[in-house]
Order: sequence, then C-alpha cells, then structure tokens
Amino acid sequence: MSNLIDLTHVMENEMPIFPGDDNFILKQDKFFDENKYNNFMLKTSMHVGTHLDSPMHMTKSTMTIDQYSIDKFCGKAIVLNVLGEDIIDYKEEYEKMIKNNDIVLFYTGFDKYFKAKEYFLKYPVITTNLAEFLISKNVKLVGFDTPSPDYYPFSIHKMLLSNNIFIIENLCNLNLLLNKTCEVFCFPLKIKADASLLRVVAKC
Amino acid sequence: MSNLIDLTHVMENEMPIFPGDDNFILKQDKFFDENKYNNFMLKTSMHVGTHLDSPMHMTKSTMTIDQYSIDKFCGKAIVLNVLGEDIIDYKEEYEKMIKNNDIVLFYTGFDKYFKAKEYFLKYPVITTNLAEFLISKNVKLVGFDTPSPDYYPFSIHKMLLSNNIFIIENLCNLNLLLNKTCEVFCFPLKIKADASLLRVVAKC
Repeated sequence: MSNLIDLTHVMENEMPIFPGDDNFILKQDKFFDENKYNNFMLKTSMHVGTHLDSPMHMTKSTMTIDQYSIDKFCGKAIVLNVLGEDIIDYKEEYEKMIKNNDIVLFYTGFDKYFKAKEYFLKYPVITTNLAEFLISKNVKLVGFDTPSPDYYPFSIHKMLLSNNIFIIENLCNLNLLLNKTCEVFCFPLKIKADASLLRVVAKC
Repeated sequence: MSNLIDLTHVMENEMPIFPGDDNFILKQDKFFDENKYNNFMLKTSMHVGTHLDSPMHMTKSTMTIDQYSIDKFCGKAIVLNVLGEDIIDYKEEYEKMIKNNDIVLFYTGFDKYFKAKEYFLKYPVITTNLAEFLISKNVKLVGFDTPSPDYYPFSIHKMLLSNNIFIIENLCNLNLLLNKTCEVFCFPLKIKADASLLRVVAKC
C-alpha cells in the first residue's frame, strides 16, 4: 500500500519570513463559546512558508498562477540527495536519473534550521551549470527544503522561471523520500497572483 | 490515461462572499517593472470560495486543520447526481453506492449561479435523514457545489462536523465526474485555523 508523506511546514503566526517581507498574521475573530462558530482572518503574502513561485514572480509574464493547467502541479518526483553541499552543482549521474517532465526535489537537510536565524543567511545554492542542465532536461518543477535556490539578485530564479520551471521553497521531510519512487501533489490555490501558499504531499 | 479535473473556483477580488463575512482582498504591492519582482498581499477568512470546514468550525473541538492526518484529504470519491433537487433526501440506492471512508460529492449544478445573487439565497439543502445516513456509513468527507449543505442555524453542519466528517463548500464542475470512478485530492493548507482555502482536483 502506498504511503502519504507531508512535505509542508505548519503555517502559524511565529513562522519565519524572508527578510524584508511582511509577517504572516493569522487572527481568530470568532469564537465558538461566544459566536457559535470559530473563524480566523489571515493576512499574508504568497511567498511565506511552503509555497510555489510561478514565472510571473520574477519575469515579465502576466500569467497568474490560476491560469496554468493542473497537470503542471503533480507527477513523478526525483529526490536528489545533496545533504552537506553548500554549492549544489551538476553531476553526471543526474543525466540518467532525471527525465523530461520530472519534478526534481533537492534534499539539503536545511529544513532543520527553519526556525533558526541561519535559515535565511547560510542556505545552499545551485549553480548556473545545474540550472542549465535542469532547463535542458525540461523538468516540470523544482523544489527545495531551503528558502531559495539562490541569493539576491536571484539569477537562478530568473533562469528557471523564464523557462517555465516553477520553484517550490521551504519544503521539509525530503529525507523520507530518498531512494523511493514517488508521485508528488503540489496544487496551488487557484488564485490571481504570482505565487501560492502550498500543501505538498508525496505518495510513495 | 487518467485525466485531471479541477473542481475549484478562481480566487479573485470580485468573488462572492457568504453574507456577513469579510471580503476577500488580494492586492498587488510589488511590480516587476518597478521592483524587479511581483508580489501580492492577501487578506481573507478561510471560508471563502472553494474551501474546507473542519470540526473546529462549529463544534467545541480545538483541533486546528493542520493537525489532521493527510489521509483524511484524499481518496475514492462518489458523485451523487442530485440536479434539480431543492431538498436532497436519503435514497435507498445510496446504500450500495456509498462505502465506508468514501468522499461523497453532491452534484446540484448550483455552481452556475456562483456569481449571481441567488447563489446564497436559494441553494438546495440536505435532510437530517441523509446526514444520519452519511454518518452511519462513516464517510470521510462530503462536498457541495453550493455555499453550504444547510441554512442558519446550521444543524447539518453540526451533525456532520461533530462526527468528524469534513465539509467542502463552493465546488464546481462536478458534472464532469458523473458516472466515473475518481480519486479526489483536497489537501488543505497546513494552517492553524478551523478551515482552509482549497484546491480540489479529481483524477478519473
């Protein structure tokens, strides 16, 4: 029987925010004892916690994330074990591992720092070589257990997004997918924005 | 080859809101031409558009939606064709159709009024008899292409939620699932709230 694995951080008020971004604010405004029901109001950007960047985030595209086919957001996933690599480069072994239209996830193990200061300061990055390889392989989507595959001025973001490769940031638990064949579901909200908060689930 | 079908309304500023609830406000605050990236800020309740109510919404439960197992949010779905029924009652034929742990979706066709005034005023409801039957069958989750399975004081909501049956509201396109065997994915955000905005996808 297949097993479902949750690759998503909890969304709550104390969650860490990319430096400079607005805080995630979740506030209960109706209470069962008083109002006969509970309700919460949320104020947030879409680039918080586990989330998905579409090309519109850092290119001239004006196509909001609701307009993409849902086929874009699920499929066979390959997890690359890059634990301990500060600079994640192309490796020849990736040629056979990665196929056209795959979802490629990078296990860096950095999710253990999610609530620590260093999470946004010292995360590993991928090289231009590797980004070019992912583009040449025509992968569907890439995902990281870090805040980003690069730092300012975000040239890797721009390379991937301008080639229609979506980027998932702030994943967790990718170690549970190592050496397994998995399908990943990462359907964004059908929202008229450049990105979406996300629940990511693997079926292995 | 299986086919993915999107059962979700678009989330945008003009979307209809349950009477009395706060508006959904999505506002672009960063622009590619000026800021080198796009960003949107969202202010919303979780009970807007296609969304999922957990028991905490209308019971004494304090268990937020992030705490439930993800197995709760996918599985085999049965679509009941109740087009044209203002009061949706128990039918004997449902005994054989519905099994333990099924996701049960009600096709009323009412999603065609989503942007019209009558959407919140004249939607069909389910009977206490039918709710009792769904509880006796121990279904996993129910979903409607209407704003709610009942009106104030929401006794059906309370029956279902107090029996740990989650409720999806404001679905669409359920006609595309009639007479098909489908798996439904309706993973909520991993958020510390009583409900979640939702992307719902069927694989048929």
